[in-house]
Amino acid sequence: MNKKIKILGIVGSLRKDSFNKALMNYALSVKLDNAEIEVADISQIPIFNQDLESQVPESVKTFKAKIKEADAILISTPEYNYSIPGGLKNAIDWASRPYGDNSFDGKIVGMMSGSGGNIGGARAQYHLRQVFVFLNMHPINKPEVIIPMIHEKIDENGVLTDERTKKKIEEFL
Amino acid sequence: MNKKIKILGIVGSLRKDSFNKALMNYALSVKLDNAEIEVADISQIPIFNQDLESQVPESVKTFKAKIKEADAILISTPEYNYSIPGGLKNAIDWASRPYGDNSFDGKIVGMMSGSGGNIGGARAQYHLRQVFVFLNMHPINKPEVIIPMIHEKIDENGVLTDERTKKKIEEFL
Amino acid sequence: MNKKIKILGIVGSLRKDSFNKALMNYALSVKLDNAEIEVADISQIPIFNQDLESQVPESVKTFKAKIKEADAILISTPEYNYSIPGGLKNAIDWASRPYGDNSFDGKIVGMMSGSGGNIGGARAQYHLRQVFVFLNMHPINKPEVIIPMIHEKIDENGVLTDERTKKKIEEFL
Amino acid sequence: MNKKIKILGIVGSLRKDSFNKALMNYALSVKLDNAEIEVADISQIPIFNQDLESQVPESVKTFKAKIKEADAILISTPEYNYSIPGGLKNAIDWASRPYGDNSFDGKIVGMMSGSGGNIGGARAQYHLRQVFVFLNMHPINKPEVIIPMIHEKIDENGVLTDERTKKKIEEFL
Repeated sequence: MNKKIKILGIVGSLRKDSFNKALMNYALSVKLDNAEIEVADISQIPIFNQDLESQVPESVKTFKAKIKEADAILISTPEYNYSIPGGLKNAIDWASRPYGDNSFDGKIVGMMSGSGGNIGGARAQYHLRQVFVFLNMHPINKPEVIIPMIHEKIDENGVLTDERTKKKIEEFL
Repeated sequence: MNKKIKILGIVGSLRKDSFNKALMNYALSVKLDNAEIEVADISQIPIFNQDLESQVPESVKTFKAKIKEADAILISTPEYNYSIPGGLKNAIDWASRPYGDNSFDGKIVGMMSGSGGNIGGARAQYHLRQVFVFLNMHPINKPEVIIPMIHEKIDENGVLTDERTKKKIEEFL
Repeated sequence: MNKKIKILGIVGSLRKDSFNKALMNYALSVKLDNAEIEVADISQIPIFNQDLESQVPESVKTFKAKIKEADAILISTPEYNYSIPGGLKNAIDWASRPYGDNSFDGKIVGMMSGSGGNIGGARAQYHLRQVFVFLNMHPINKPEVIIPMIHEKIDENGVLTDERTKKKIEEFL
Repeated sequence: MNKKIKILGIVGSLRKDSFNKALMNYALSVKLDNAEIEVADISQIPIFNQDLESQVPESVKTFKAKIKEADAILISTPEYNYSIPGGLKNAIDWASRPYGDNSFDGKIVGMMSGSGGNIGGARAQYHLRQVFVFLNMHPINKPEVIIPMIHEKIDENGVLTDERTKKKIEEFL
């Protein structure tokens, strides 16, 4: 009867023990009455080259299909070099193409990020917000899930243990 | 006697007939008394994954070595989705790693960009400038080589024909 | 019966013959069935100083009241030094205060900008978008009203004459 | 014999007990062998209006003269609404004018900022860096003096007490 909102999760770091994967895993574990989250795999997407648009790789086709099925996108990402990780940006670039077939068009998007320093990945989020203007996505303003000192909040099994961060993610969802 | 300044060129688009490759080609053709430009190949660099740092791919090793040999970096890039192309950012991410071995440290960097609209790739340049803060690179302020309506300035053979743009690149170099 | 949407216009330049005032004047002249635009006066707002919050200037009180009455905000502004004009930012800073009384909270916001160069004020718009995150405002994504070479599009009486720009503003409204 | 480097300090907050004024005060107290710091007064500078450029206010004339005498600029500023405080930006706008008489041209610039949250004013610094491109200023990359939780580091008399922050400012200078 009540259709659940479909959320597609995208993790910006490919590292097995990624802190931002841990944030996503916590989001997956939160019991949501009206939404379900699935996480996309962007690890197989090659570097974008417009000359390849006539023969779109399978990994990109799958990624684009999953985005289109989703009502909302949830990105959990670190910042690399004060901006968006190249691999995440590359996946976004592919999914925005070919011209006229931007899979993200009109979607709601939320972001979470954590880092070992104080800034907590915020610089990647503000660059992503500028990307969302072109993609015509609607980012959530508040709360901003920006987690500083994340290494102190995740245990050796990659499980988020910090109660304040947990609360923030629950409120956000 | 007079050692020439070594400039490493990096093109942000992999497309064969890339406009920004054409800008780089024009820069290569300018006769410089005190500098020489070589262009890097970033097309073979895989998506960054920190777990792979123990077995750095050959393409990355070569890229890092070329950056270290260079005195200055020249980036010619379009903007994708109002930011840095994912492939270019990914190559930068690899070259900044592993921790403590940032190949770009202390280098001078210049940028050129062109696009089909009025903004001319400027949005990628401002995001790159923020990346350069973390990389401790020294970007040139002026002139900003930001070329709007670039498709009208390059002929069917991918050769830059616009005299004003040519002058700007010469002045920049 | 049908309540009209109230739009509050804010012009970022105080200059009498401001191009961005001309854009706003054109917006005022467009016949709208379901909205009405009033333009705020920010010229009398002093520089923000938190110590003055106990005795808020009349000009600020009036400005805050007009924002609160409005359903949406329309900003027409140039960029100064690649960012938001200080006077406009200062008016925004006052209206966001005191803590807990942000007049902009939850409002929809649109932007128009023009400049003499190719970038058309875009850099001010992207900085404003970051400001809107904190203010919890909802900026319109498309169309982006960014007008390059604006001096060629406005006549000696400060009247917008360019048909394409007129169309863009009408579509935007 | 050894001419001292002249540094002009600019504080972005006018509040009497400003935390960022406290950072500047600490910088003033550091004994420097080869440099001296003077702090500018921007509190009397009116809102910029290009129509007033024929009759530049005295406060602006004094500010421009002090900038020109200086070898380097040191800005200590909070962020307001995720960007540069309007009053600070307004002072910069005046000093960059009239066209052809940008007082900041070619100067070295350093930044310090603090805030009550985790981001520590960083968002104002990155917007300022974009402003510096147009002004042709040369910002220092490292260390970035971005102080989170600053209210815990300054005592009731407005004196910086945190040893780590003190060290950072000394290293920076």
